[in-house]
Amino acid sequence: MQFSQRVETMQFSPIRKFNPIAARVKEKGKKVYHLNIGQPDVETPDCFMDAIKAYNAAVIKYAESGGVTQLQDAVIDYYKTYGIELERGDMIVTNGGSEALTMAFLSLVNPGDEVLVPEPFYTNYHTFLTTAGGKIVPITTKAEEGFSYATREQIEPLITDKTRAICCITPGNPTGNVLTLDEMRLVCEIAKEHDIFVIADEVYREFAYDGRPVTSFGMLPEYSDRVIIIDSVSKRYSACGARIGLLVSKNKELMSYAMKIAQARLCVSTVDQIGSASLFKLPASYYEEVKAEYCGRRDVVYEEMMKIPGVVCRKPGGAFYMTVKLPVDNVEDFLMFMLEEFEDNGETVMFAPAEGFYATPGLGKDEIRIAYVLNQKDMKRGAELIRLGIEAYNAKKGK
Amino acid sequence: MQFSQRVETMQFSPIRKFNPIAARVKEKGKKVYHLNIGQPDVETPDCFMDAIKAYNAAVIKYAESGGVTQLQDAVIDYYKTYGIELERGDMIVTNGGSEALTMAFLSLVNPGDEVLVPEPFYTNYHTFLTTAGGKIVPITTKAEEGFSYATREQIEPLITDKTRAICCITPGNPTGNVLTLDEMRLVCEIAKEHDIFVIADEVYREFAYDGRPVTSFGMLPEYSDRVIIIDSVSKRYSACGARIGLLVSKNKELMSYAMKIAQARLCVSTVDQIGSASLFKLPASYYEEVKAEYCGRRDVVYEEMMKIPGVVCRKPGGAFYMTVKLPVDNVEDFLMFMLEEFEDNGETVMFAPAEGFYATPGLGKDEIRIAYVLNQKDMKRGAELIRLGIEAYNAKKGK
Repeated sequence: MQFSQRVETMQFSPIRKFNPIAARVKEKGKKVYHLNIGQPDVETPDCFMDAIKAYNAAVIKYAESGGVTQLQDAVIDYYKTYGIELERGDMIVTNGGSEALTMAFLSLVNPGDEVLVPEPFYTNYHTFLTTAGGKIVPITTKAEEGFSYATREQIEPLITDKTRAICCITPGNPTGNVLTLDEMRLVCEIAKEHDIFVIADEVYREFAYDGRPVTSFGMLPEYSDRVIIIDSVSKRYSACGARIGLLVSKNKELMSYAMKIAQARLCVSTVDQIGSASLFKLPASYYEEVKAEYCGRRDVVYEEMMKIPGVVCRKPGGAFYMTVKLPVDNVEDFLMFMLEEFEDNGETVMFAPAEGFYATPGLGKDEIRIAYVLNQKDMKRGAELIRLGIEAYNAKKGK
Repeated sequence: MQFSQRVETMQFSPIRKFNPIAARVKEKGKKVYHLNIGQPDVETPDCFMDAIKAYNAAVIKYAESGGVTQLQDAVIDYYKTYGIELERGDMIVTNGGSEALTMAFLSLVNPGDEVLVPEPFYTNYHTFLTTAGGKIVPITTKAEEGFSYATREQIEPLITDKTRAICCITPGNPTGNVLTLDEMRLVCEIAKEHDIFVIADEVYREFAYDGRPVTSFGMLPEYSDRVIIIDSVSKRYSACGARIGLLVSKNKELMSYAMKIAQARLCVSTVDQIGSASLFKLPASYYEEVKAEYCGRRDVVYEEMMKIPGVVCRKPGGAFYMTVKLPVDNVEDFLMFMLEEFEDNGETVMFAPAEGFYATPGLGKDEIRIAYVLNQKDMKRGAELIRLGIEAYNAKKGK
């Protein structure tokens, strides 16, 4: 019996692959601070479960393939607060942002086609694009430069006749990089000149700090026919287990093709859609509160990381991640040390080695991604454990 | 801007494409009996929403990529009642049966590979297989023969070096054909001889009538390393809007590859999983009740269809569909007539033209699929309207 090349090529999640080791260590009584996964501890707003509990249908029926009207209308109102005008036909409700990305790639990419993605990138982009037979062409970015990439010099030389889209995530996972509206405009301008799409992953939209305004590729109506926005309730509303995402575009042909895929898989969870409709109706104050919380966490982690001699990190502007270059030779080796050998008062910390976020071989071996998804006290302690761990690791190595 | 060949090739749902016309007709006051889609009117058991309402997590977190333990254990107990022994690692909880089928095809099929599928087939198989770059090779079946196909003569000549699997749905959509355990064994034997997989779509498992026992490819442990079972709560528990399906296999290599895809899309709706765990715990009496209800509906429709001169239909043994050959020249034309011209006391009926369920060009033009998803009284009336409609249509055509 044979298997497909695509599943043989796909990588196992580099974020999840150390979980079995962590589980074993925890069973032995060591406490592990999990800074490795993007699962926030922020409470999901009550309105989500309240709306579901109030749902009284005798038959839990298929929803419309594009999404239930109630949710679509709440999304339209939410986008309107940012001056972005949508109609119901401009969106398909998806199984999380993941399915929206998959639909976008399946709609645009033939086997062998290329999509430009800044690296380090959200690792599952690789799997979704592999599903479509496509290939990531990385726009390589550097910790020293705050992982910035939105310049003509960095993007344009990478475009070939196989390029189908530029895929930007802003605010960014895993780097926290935030594009300005001018940078978005430049990306769109380049896309227009080469007649390709822009896939804009904006699932962290509101998490932009230090006075940065909320920005969206949807705010550039002159390019709306080539912009595909990926959205999700997961991070914005701390509702990762409600698998509700959105594919949003004004390009009617794209939406018509994506709808073929959507119709085949019938629909998305009815109750999650009902609950999510209430989330999109939350007042602006909700975003302010959550943003303040994450910003405070970022400050604590950043301050703590800056105490480590040799660390390279620019203060990230958004999302809830930072990618940090550490003064260690091999981060996966360092993580194994942290799990199996290191402890401070019975505690250690886990983070995501960044190598899996790079397409270019050899890059990221000395970098980690920290997700600031725990409260300030735990984040401070987690970062402190990284600092103490580096001292112990390098002492052991005789450095 | 370019789109992928795959989305250009995919068909729009032949089941849903007449919906806009039906909507227009209904706005004008005509009543339409919907026998065209597999959305039953049977109530979802209360335990589904009760379990969700009792779920009190402060954070709606990502579930495990393979599914929540609570649901997996309920599934294990359910399969045990049929003598099928599963472990947690033998299953991945999916976004409906749809995602399970997609994962199976993505794991087995390289571009250009073939999967044998009896035709007429559930139309979305075409879309899912196209996503993987594969091609349906139809095992053509006939209304006159009750759509049977499980013989060596029908299957074996179609196998080539590009064949990766035989995909059977039993009880069947759209034909109602049910495989016996001996027929399943033959399919597995052929698969073994040619070293290919069997993909067994068993989402209608309990809906087998006239004393037929519940059967499953899982009941043949000697072939378990090459069997992939697709399962779902949608039909069994009338919970189509709870997007919970299952990919089940004892083949560890397959499950490991499928898990790469599952991890990339993170997880399936947490609340739907909680609700579905309670569904799998329903007592055997639940299946008996629902089966009796559907069987009664089938009898009513079958009796009514047999009154139509020239109709070809063998009484289907399971699921809640029948595919019927009608004495009309063109079924799509007949459906348009039914919607736009025909009425009896202000009522008409809608069904699915079967042409879209065939891969072989030209087949199915005089066949329809009836879904017996309404109560007996409505089903009788719906079938009667088909009979009256045929008389009116053929009279108009001068036959």
